[in-house]
Amino acid sequence: MQVRAIIGVIGAGSASPQAEAWAYEIGRLIAERGAVLVCGGLDGVMRAACRGCAEAGGETLGILPGSEAQAANPWVTYPIVTNMGHARNVIIAHTAQALIAVDGEYGTLSEIAVSLKLGRTVAALGAWPGIPGVFYVDSPRAAVDLVFQRLAENEK
Amino acid sequence: MQVRAIIGVIGAGSASPQAEAWAYEIGRLIAERGAVLVCGGLDGVMRAACRGCAEAGGETLGILPGSEAQAANPWVTYPIVTNMGHARNVIIAHTAQALIAVDGEYGTLSEIAVSLKLGRTVAALGAWPGIPGVFYVDSPRAAVDLVFQRLAENEK
Amino acid sequence: MQVRAIIGVIGAGSASPQAEAWAYEIGRLIAERGAVLVCGGLDGVMRAACRGCAEAGGETLGILPGSEAQAANPWVTYPIVTNMGHARNVIIAHTAQALIAVDGEYGTLSEIAVSLKLGRTVAALGAWPGIPGVFYVDSPRAAVDLVFQRLAENEK
Amino acid sequence: MQVRAIIGVIGAGSASPQAEAWAYEIGRLIAERGAVLVCGGLDGVMRAACRGCAEAGGETLGILPGSEAQAANPWVTYPIVTNMGHARNVIIAHTAQALIAVDGEYGTLSEIAVSLKLGRTVAALGAWPGIPGVFYVDSPRAAVDLVFQRLAENEK
Repeated sequence: MQVRAIIGVIGAGSASPQAEAWAYEIGRLIAERGAVLVCGGLDGVMRAACRGCAEAGGETLGILPGSEAQAANPWVTYPIVTNMGHARNVIIAHTAQALIAVDGEYGTLSEIAVSLKLGRTVAALGAWPGIPGVFYVDSPRAAVDLVFQRLAENEK
Repeated sequence: MQVRAIIGVIGAGSASPQAEAWAYEIGRLIAERGAVLVCGGLDGVMRAACRGCAEAGGETLGILPGSEAQAANPWVTYPIVTNMGHARNVIIAHTAQALIAVDGEYGTLSEIAVSLKLGRTVAALGAWPGIPGVFYVDSPRAAVDLVFQRLAENEK
Repeated sequence: MQVRAIIGVIGAGSASPQAEAWAYEIGRLIAERGAVLVCGGLDGVMRAACRGCAEAGGETLGILPGSEAQAANPWVTYPIVTNMGHARNVIIAHTAQALIAVDGEYGTLSEIAVSLKLGRTVAALGAWPGIPGVFYVDSPRAAVDLVFQRLAENEK
Repeated sequence: MQVRAIIGVIGAGSASPQAEAWAYEIGRLIAERGAVLVCGGLDGVMRAACRGCAEAGGETLGILPGSEAQAANPWVTYPIVTNMGHARNVIIAHTAQALIAVDGEYGTLSEIAVSLKLGRTVAALGAWPGIPGVFYVDSPRAAVDLVFQRLAENEK
């Protein structure tokens, strides 16, 4: 079976219209690349990214913090129910081969840091500035291009 | 989006030919019902069930105990990388709406017990006898029929 | 620093007077042996065991499932707050060098199974019968004697 | 039972002599306040802080990422074995009532972020600059004074 890339999208559960528009576009682009999207499965950036991905024909994995699958946003194809709160962020970092951070607060910062610790490529759009190792980009397309380019280089 | 049922299949990573044949057939029947299969993503019963599901056109979620997606058997559609060892069993129980145990040893017993604790329907085929609350069945078809019948009753 | 043995006590959060009396006595005997008690930190068997241990001058670790340290029973010396629900049972099994099950329901069965999977000695008093590998005993003293005898043998 | 405060100390497993000296002093001061120290239980900042605490007569909780209690540094009084890798950082943040970061890299940044997300007071000495919500201090004593002052205020 040919394995598809899994790309994480991380960001706040309560996001600005700008951040949601970015996340939606990132989701679409991930689907157009034939990749799978993984995220925290809830609202804000997560919901917008899932919607973009699903509307472009892609699949989405929602790694949920609580104990109820119903908490997933309606664009999550596969709800994974962890009941582990913030520890589910670590599962997202392990599951994604590369991640894109959009906006975001402390939860996103934690996710960025764990992802870097695991050696993942992290692109950031409007997220925490000044973190060494993060690739700061200025558009959804630049974010998606960057993570796929880096994945391709790592496979060589 | 119409949500599909997610059915767990649990059993030993090193299984008898009989158990693997049962697991394969259970995987096929889950796919034919249009449901998603979730399991631990490794070998033995997990691998056979994933193969049956995938060969019948279904999707499989593999909740992996280690830190490497490559540890998933080749029939896992979506590898979820937890790096949490046996604690990943609890995630399987939370994620599945009902579970089928095939053969299995201590890990499977732990999984059965957590699933019952969470109120999940558990069917067992050749697995730990004598546990109150488990539905003991004698064929793959009986196992799958039972869990879908119970899910349908719970939705009424 | 001389490392002290850590003994797990597992059982239902809502227990019979008989089970609580057993758990209290087991807690006392663990303290008298100079060992540390680890448990789930809540009520029933856990509370009685912690009380017995603390009243005999011992220390207790409570591995809590929720997000609040205040949920610990008053005899927990050190509350460990996991916010991981039943997955905290796996941490108890990893942390304890040997475990004693008292009475108990599905949660305890899960704990017994994980502990056996990890190769821990498990003594059971009034708990799930018929599990291969469990040492069934008929008194608190027999339970404590057994686990310390087994630990001593393993160190040889 | 009077509950003692539990203070987290976080920082890199491979630390500079300066960072280790700070951590040792922080550990001593935590013990002198009668509080318990919680950390990741390994080397570098964690080891130095545990040593300082233990040599001043205090107790230390080591929340270990792996599956072996023997991985704990020799100054850990109570090794908690999680086998959950970086997810154990979330347990440290939940267990500590306030945290002090010393030096540190991505793992520490992740820990700081989760702690802030949970509303914990975080003091930082030589750690990641510029994170809103962190109290930046310039000495071990200032760090310990700050967290205890904040805990006292929260109890009013």
